[in-house]
Amino acid sequence: MKIKVIENVLRDNDAVARANRELMNAAGVLALNITSAPGSGKTTLLQRTIDQLQPQRRCAVLVGDLQTTRDAERLSRDDTDVAQINTGRGCHLSAAQVAQGLENLRLDRVDFLFIENVGNMVCPAGFDLGEHLRVALLSVPEGDDKVAKYPTLFQPADVIVVNKIDLIGVLDFDLRRVTDDLSRINTRAPLIQLSARTGAGFDTWQEWLEERKEQGGRVS
Amino acid sequence: MKIKVIENVLRDNDAVARANRELMNAAGVLALNITSAPGSGKTTLLQRTIDQLQPQRRCAVLVGDLQTTRDAERLSRDDTDVAQINTGRGCHLSAAQVAQGLENLRLDRVDFLFIENVGNMVCPAGFDLGEHLRVALLSVPEGDDKVAKYPTLFQPADVIVVNKIDLIGVLDFDLRRVTDDLSRINTRAPLIQLSARTGAGFDTWQEWLEERKEQGGRVS
Repeated sequence: MKIKVIENVLRDNDAVARANRELMNAAGVLALNITSAPGSGKTTLLQRTIDQLQPQRRCAVLVGDLQTTRDAERLSRDDTDVAQINTGRGCHLSAAQVAQGLENLRLDRVDFLFIENVGNMVCPAGFDLGEHLRVALLSVPEGDDKVAKYPTLFQPADVIVVNKIDLIGVLDFDLRRVTDDLSRINTRAPLIQLSARTGAGFDTWQEWLEERKEQGGRVS
Repeated sequence: MKIKVIENVLRDNDAVARANRELMNAAGVLALNITSAPGSGKTTLLQRTIDQLQPQRRCAVLVGDLQTTRDAERLSRDDTDVAQINTGRGCHLSAAQVAQGLENLRLDRVDFLFIENVGNMVCPAGFDLGEHLRVALLSVPEGDDKVAKYPTLFQPADVIVVNKIDLIGVLDFDLRRVTDDLSRINTRAPLIQLSARTGAGFDTWQEWLEERKEQGGRVS
């Protein structure tokens, strides 16, 4: 019984995700689902990314959080639509929540939609939101063992972003351990090192975003 | 239907948790459920804690992870029983998994049982494992906004441990923001600052553990 219900939930979610994707395709929006542990720097990454992309590219953000609107407030600015989704006790965003969020955005005015998922390395992995690209973010203080320990997050990612590289000298973190573990589960996604605090690596990150925008999202 | 199944799951879990607690009470074991985000330093905290407590106090560990036995290997030592629980895609430990783990431990030889939950700030909060005390761990690099954003983790905690305080000078982290947020949701749990890397704060942490061991666990 339990398994059947979960299967139904996933099937229903996938149907809504497909509808979300079609809606965004029609509007010419490229959507990215940003997944990571709590405190990896998703919001700071998005602040700086939007700074770099605007005004040439128009951005919008959907922010998932259990409670509070703090991240949405941090991202709020005149030239960017930001919608907050509070999940209560929910441990990940669902396609239905994103569909509701999309109703609050003017999609015809959006080039990039960033969906900031709930900080969680496990549950968001199983739920398609209708995004075109999935970003798996890992920060240096979390340690170099996380790819091996949370493969369900890193295996389906289209890009692996290692944040807080300004702390590599301060902490024990062996990037080769990350690339070794990735070589076993995901050889397709590029790895981009950056610091959302200092801005290091953001040129490479912006280039990747622009390239994928030109290609219209996922190659599959 | 979905809600009913979840209620059944929680009710079944609570029954097994009670049985676990009775088993440990009978053996004189004090059990602590350690919850945090991935990379907060649960394993390093336990390594140093066990170093300090042994051999006067006998310790054992149950380690939950999606995959790999890396944490169990890090904790492995001759004088401590360590059992690994792999949850696959499971985002938290359940009481039934802990019950299985307990079968691999010689409880009559254990004073402290540390249960290292899956790195996840959301899902472990809802599941009683049969522990006597719940530890919510927060690390400085995660940011000072996590108590407000993940209240379900911090509200039921019996102690709040702030780890990696050696990074407070390096990063923007305002401890007053943490204590302010805690004052709204949990005024009962003490806050202990420490660094599992340098050992700072471990005397206070050990004192707290010994006090709670004398008192036999949760005061309620």
